[in-house]
Parts: sequence; C-alpha cells; structure tokens
Amino acid sequence: MFVRTVEPAFYDTDALGHVNNTRLPAWFELARNDLFRLFTPDLDPRKWRLIMARMEVDYRAELQYGREIEIRTYVSRLGNSSFTVSQEARQDGQLTNLGHTVMVHFDHATKQAVPIEGALREALEAHRQEEPADA
Amino acid sequence: MFVRTVEPAFYDTDALGHVNNTRLPAWFELARNDLFRLFTPDLDPRKWRLIMARMEVDYRAELQYGREIEIRTYVSRLGNSSFTVSQEARQDGQLTNLGHTVMVHFDHATKQAVPIEGALREALEAHRQEEPADA
Amino acid sequence: MFVRTVEPAFYDTDALGHVNNTRLPAWFELARNDLFRLFTPDLDPRKWRLIMARMEVDYRAELQYGREIEIRTYVSRLGNSSFTVSQEARQDGQLTNLGHTVMVHFDHATKQAVPIEGALREALEAHRQEEPADA
Amino acid sequence: MFVRTVEPAFYDTDALGHVNNTRLPAWFELARNDLFRLFTPDLDPRKWRLIMARMEVDYRAELQYGREIEIRTYVSRLGNSSFTVSQEARQDGQLTNLGHTVMVHFDHATKQAVPIEGALREALEAHRQEEPADA
Repeated sequence: MFVRTVEPAFYDTDALGHVNNTRLPAWFELARNDLFRLFTPDLDPRKWRLIMARMEVDYRAELQYGREIEIRTYVSRLGNSSFTVSQEARQDGQLTNLGHTVMVHFDHATKQAVPIEGALREALEAHRQEEPADA
Repeated sequence: MFVRTVEPAFYDTDALGHVNNTRLPAWFELARNDLFRLFTPDLDPRKWRLIMARMEVDYRAELQYGREIEIRTYVSRLGNSSFTVSQEARQDGQLTNLGHTVMVHFDHATKQAVPIEGALREALEAHRQEEPADA
Repeated sequence: MFVRTVEPAFYDTDALGHVNNTRLPAWFELARNDLFRLFTPDLDPRKWRLIMARMEVDYRAELQYGREIEIRTYVSRLGNSSFTVSQEARQDGQLTNLGHTVMVHFDHATKQAVPIEGALREALEAHRQEEPADA
Repeated sequence: MFVRTVEPAFYDTDALGHVNNTRLPAWFELARNDLFRLFTPDLDPRKWRLIMARMEVDYRAELQYGREIEIRTYVSRLGNSSFTVSQEARQDGQLTNLGHTVMVHFDHATKQAVPIEGALREALEAHRQEEPADA
C-alpha cells in the first residue's frame, strides 16, 4: 500500500464550502504516480504502458479545506492484462471516499493490451490488499 | 435528454496527446447544469439542494483535442430521494465515454435526504431515458 | 476580434461563492483556440508552433456561477516573432477581467523562435485591436 | 520565505509533453496557503480576509512530469492594504517560473479594503524578501 498526504488548495473548494467532487479523480491520479513508477520508473510519458478503462468514486462524507487528506493506494484485483487500483481518501481519520480505477497494461504503439508478467506482476502482487473493514 | 457541445482546450490534453481522463467528470458536471436548474432555477449556490453520492465513468475510446465533443445527459433511474444521471460523450459520432452519477436530493441546512415529489419529480421523469443501444 | 461565451460549471466556483481566480487563465487558453487555428488549422498538437512567455490577469470584479461569461480575444501587439494576446471577460456587460498573454512563434524541433511573416502575419494583423475604453 | 515541494500529476501535463501553463497559477495558490494562514490561521473560508487583484506569471523554461518542483513564496511589496506575493518555481535547481500576485486585505462583509496593521503587518514583514539574483 502506498500512502500520501495532499493538502487542499483554495481552488479545490466549491461554492458549497467543501472540496469539489471533481478533485477526487485528480488526487487519485496524482497518488497513482507511485503505481505508475512500477511500469515506467522514470515516469517518461514517451514510455507509457497504461490506459484507463474505468473509474468509480464513492462520496461518503465531505472533505474540507484547511486540513490534510490521506490517500491510500493499493491493488485490489490483478487480472491477465488489467488490474484494479483501490484508493481511499481520509480526513481526520474518517474514510470520506473510496475509488476504483481499472487500468490496462497497454502498448501504445500497437494499441493492444499486454499480459502482466514476471517482475512487473510480482511488483503489483506486493501491493495487493483487501479493501478496509470500514469501506 | 439534454445535449451540449464542449470544445477541448489545450490544458484538457495530457502527455499522451489526448484528453486526460480527469476532464470527463468535470465536463459531465458542467453538462449537469441543465439538470441542476430543475432543482435551483437560478443556480444560486446558497439554495443548493443536491449532493453527489457516487460517480462512474467508462473510457471506451480516446477523445482528441481540436474537435468538438457532444455530451448527452438524462435520468436513467429515479428513486425516492436519489436518482442516477447517465451521461455520454461522443466525438465524430463515436461513443467514447459513459458516465453515471448518483445524486441525492438534500437539505444542506438539516443535512438530510429529501423525497423527490410533485413538479420536481415530473420534471425529472420528463428527462428519463434508457441507455443507448451502443452503450 | 474573436468572441466566445463560456458557462461556469460548479467546479469553477470556490468557497467564497464566486468563480475561482485560477479559472481565468484556463478559460483564456480555451478562447485562444481561435488564434491557435491561425498557426495550426487542425489544432494537431504534433504541429504546434507556439510557446507561452508570460501571462497576466487583472481581477476587477467577481464572476458568478449561473450566468454566461463573454470572452473577447484579440492581438494587441505584434512583434518580430512574439505577439501579445489581450483577452477580456465580461458578465452582465461588466468587464471583470483583462488578460495579456505573450506568445512566441516557435519551432519545437529546433527550440528556436521563428519570425512571423507572410500570410500568418496578415492573419494576426486582421485580429489586431486596441484595448477597450473601459479597460 | 515559505518553501514547498509539489509533484506533478499526469493530468498536469499537456500534449506538448510538459506541464501546462495553467497549472502554475494553481500551484502558486496552493503554496499561498502558508501566507493565507497569517490572515486566517485555521483557513476557514467563512473568515476569509483577502481578494486577488492581479496575477502575473513568467515562463522561462519547461517543467516536466516525473520530477519534483520547488515553490518559494515571499512578500516582495507591502502597501497600506495591499501586498505583492512573489513566487518562484524551480525544477532540478533551475528557475522556470516567476509569479507575482497582488492581494488586498479585504472585508468581504462590507466589500472594502482594510489597512494591514499591527501583528499582521509584522508577520508579513517577517516574510518580506527581495527577488532572486537569477530572476
């Protein structure tokens, strides 16, 4: 599991006074940098090996400006060429959001899915985890 | 069904040369303005009557900068106090994204869900529709 | 002069209830699509011929969610290889923002500025204009 | 001077492969959280005491995805009720962006500028600094 802390900016808020829903997919993508490095260690976009197939985010409580947010990132499903990333946002210890992203190991030159094998598969297995009890 | 056209900006793209995945939740929120007006006709945030419970987006094909994107918005489920908004993005006639957003009719003062009744229910019913055959 | 209308989305607002300041550089970039087409008619990023050298935005009044915003875009200075784009945002007829962007005609392969000549220079001259009396 | 590190997300890039220009105003606002706390220690938006009057950003070099960016924030001018925040972005030790933001100490209830006095003035003076030699 990868853990990061993000700090909301004023522009992350909306007129309801809390963090806007569209910021969660963005923060979750930022936090996936840790997973992206398993595929592309130097994060060079010209060597990119992933595409996104699906994204889901549950909104269970509001996130507020002025207090840090913890993002946890792990692999909850590992298929042949695709896998699911589960991500949790927490503020003041409360689980506010649970997200799932289906990513596909992909060759952008041939536009085809590629099996996840060898050291790459082991690296993803090492970050595999069940979803939390409070989810 | 509400239909709108959005034009990608350069900042909507990412280093893979296409529209970044995080823009879909944003464009879908922009397109929900039409639905929001059924709840708050002048869109005054101080009279807001909705919260988001869940968001899903499927990514079926890439969206490109330089060509317009059509967004279709309709109600695909109407519950007691919650409903599901289905949204489609299309470019050059191809369905690239299908999104679902679960919204709850909500009283922000009492922090409670409120049944959808009367003229409001009728207005939402008028925009109810099945998902498309190509979805 | 190019004129466009943008409609604020809920995510464009911030906790002060108005449009967040960071949205103006984004909307101004969207509106520059019209100017970008003079350099790259199909907007193909692989043929891009511009870089940004400087951006300024004045904030004279608040922009509100729920009402359309007019963006005017024109050339206020035309140098040898660089030019300045002036952009105005107006809501309900009031000038709320005046922006200036210094762009450089640029060869991304050789990483060098390129003089603006011939038909391209004429096209930019055709959109040249003084700033408004109310600015 | 306040110093922070930001890590670019994939969505911060654009089709030219580098960080998009519109992200600098956003990152600079995030980094101003440190200054905002001098005015509103708990960052509660309902007690907000500032408005933005002007923003400028110079673009001297590209910022790349995959490497951290250092943001330095300080006060370069302190007027009666307004002040200028200077902000620098650096990657791999190179100054890539210099930004200036004119903020006004403001009473959002009466919609009037308020003089910067007493402990607040001293706090801002403590973060006052000249712009760097390489700027």
